[in-house]
Amino acid sequence: MTPAKKIRVAVNGYGVIGKRVADAVAVQDDMELAGVADISADWRPRMATQKGYRLFAATGDHAEAMRNAGLDVAGNLDDLLEASDLVVDCTPKRIAAVNVDIYRQRGIKFIVQGGEKHDVTGHSFVAESTYASALNRDSTRVVSCNTTSIVRTLTALKQAGLLRRARGTLLRRATDPWESHLGGIMNTLVPEPEIPSHQGPDAQSVDPDLDVVTMAVKVPETLAHLHYWSVQLTRPASREEVLDAFAASSRIALIRMDAGLTALNAVKELMADLGRPHDNLYEVALWSDMLKVQGDELFYAYMVDNQAIVIPETIDAIRALCGVIASAEDSIARTDAALGIGLLTETLRQR
Amino acid sequence: MTPAKKIRVAVNGYGVIGKRVADAVAVQDDMELAGVADISADWRPRMATQKGYRLFAATGDHAEAMRNAGLDVAGNLDDLLEASDLVVDCTPKRIAAVNVDIYRQRGIKFIVQGGEKHDVTGHSFVAESTYASALNRDSTRVVSCNTTSIVRTLTALKQAGLLRRARGTLLRRATDPWESHLGGIMNTLVPEPEIPSHQGPDAQSVDPDLDVVTMAVKVPETLAHLHYWSVQLTRPASREEVLDAFAASSRIALIRMDAGLTALNAVKELMADLGRPHDNLYEVALWSDMLKVQGDELFYAYMVDNQAIVIPETIDAIRALCGVIASAEDSIARTDAALGIGLLTETLRQR
Repeated sequence: MTPAKKIRVAVNGYGVIGKRVADAVAVQDDMELAGVADISADWRPRMATQKGYRLFAATGDHAEAMRNAGLDVAGNLDDLLEASDLVVDCTPKRIAAVNVDIYRQRGIKFIVQGGEKHDVTGHSFVAESTYASALNRDSTRVVSCNTTSIVRTLTALKQAGLLRRARGTLLRRATDPWESHLGGIMNTLVPEPEIPSHQGPDAQSVDPDLDVVTMAVKVPETLAHLHYWSVQLTRPASREEVLDAFAASSRIALIRMDAGLTALNAVKELMADLGRPHDNLYEVALWSDMLKVQGDELFYAYMVDNQAIVIPETIDAIRALCGVIASAEDSIARTDAALGIGLLTETLRQR
Repeated sequence: MTPAKKIRVAVNGYGVIGKRVADAVAVQDDMELAGVADISADWRPRMATQKGYRLFAATGDHAEAMRNAGLDVAGNLDDLLEASDLVVDCTPKRIAAVNVDIYRQRGIKFIVQGGEKHDVTGHSFVAESTYASALNRDSTRVVSCNTTSIVRTLTALKQAGLLRRARGTLLRRATDPWESHLGGIMNTLVPEPEIPSHQGPDAQSVDPDLDVVTMAVKVPETLAHLHYWSVQLTRPASREEVLDAFAASSRIALIRMDAGLTALNAVKELMADLGRPHDNLYEVALWSDMLKVQGDELFYAYMVDNQAIVIPETIDAIRALCGVIASAEDSIARTDAALGIGLLTETLRQR
């Protein structure tokens, strides 16, 4: 299916998430990147114009400085929104809350990121769980990287009728790689002060049926998050049943220790070798040979690329809000094909 | 009680554990450090002689090099064992297995570390669990740092009648601080390839009744291990009941996030401020304000100083093997007093 008219998408905020969303929108054949907005006048927005993206000043205050820095600024945020059907807000937390009012006043559909609260849009999005309820809505929130991974994996177990309750420990990367010069923790571990940590309740904002408790700790590395899970199943199950349940999701890649993927850095290097932009790992990378079933209990670990995992969800959320594809499966398949998702799983299967 | 004759203790291997054991033996009023043995001729054994410890060459091959380096070598291992009632083996894994034959041939009581298998001595030691069964034995194994912490905490819950089963995720420090120039992981996380990791079964070598499963991951820091636990209780319990259970062990220190102990480095700094040798944290440092009870489930996290936690256990194991104190409680109290254990808990209580 090819819609007659492409969805015109604006990306507000050209940071770690925004640039990835822009690249992902640009390769969808049913979407068109109307442009990106930012406030920076340094090297970062220059990368956008070099790629041929139209660059807008997110506020009038910054337009002059951006032009003075030699940036080709096509207009202000108003101009960008005027030329768009939907805006993906990728600005930092506090800014996004202000922007939402602007979007509402203009009557433009919008997507916010997981840093915002559920109440901001009243809907939280993970494609495999809440695509249908997002159809034709005005707005949704693509949940955070950790929450996305939790909902993906637990939904897979739930759909196989295996999930009773899940208890997870989340090792959170200290800071994003590109911001690591600004400081991060070194040679220590910093527990999140509250148990449960917020990710469990956040997963329930997507699917209230999930019985999930999380604990989290910040670790001194920048590559990715790593989750360890103890799951109580509804009944004793075989390893194969569980692996089949996970394999049913195209966005859970089963990787293997014995294939040399023994640490986060090895998986990131594989992403680079696959030629993915920014070495993006869009999938939950779950170690199948580490996974253990013991009676009615399940134990496993997986890796979450905090910069990349929400990108395919954002693409699906755009289609859901615009109502151009009614079925989650169809949108997911289309997004996956455009981003090369599934290739990782296939590549490893051929081993 | 003061035994008429002090226990003469030899320490074989003056590394990270050996030097701490030697210092701890030296401050017990019912023990006498017969001497320490090593093979190094560099600055390390020099610290032993500077403290007034008698230094022996662990093998005849090394004696000459040690003397040539100007070290005051009192003799060989044979001489040290001759002058001792018991030897604590603190040598690396492979060496210890060979030494055990020597100790057996000489008929001297011995203690090995957690790196050795349970079968080497047929007995695994954690004071609060297996002191009684170690009484007057020829040998025991003081289990590893992680296992010690697991047995201490789960025994506390078991003795309060609260423990059904425990599932833990262990964040393991990458390498010891003093060896970090030899290399360690940087900016990545390295999962242990097998679930369950070995620490669960190892805890069962101390107490076969413990229903415990562990998963482990190596993290890029050197300060301490950090454990996260999900425990199924025998019944719904209050937070206070659980905290009382943990507080009943002098070797579990309840620390608080809201007292500023927000990360591993803060707790180590507190140990330095307390003036402990090597900033040793002998206790399991468990965050009481992070701890959460939800119905019949319990969640908590604690810190394990891998270099220090086994030191008090080793002291108690010496007394148990020599049969000089019949009761675990009495030995533990004596060790605690000599090492300043309990002071941490008291210091924090006074806040």
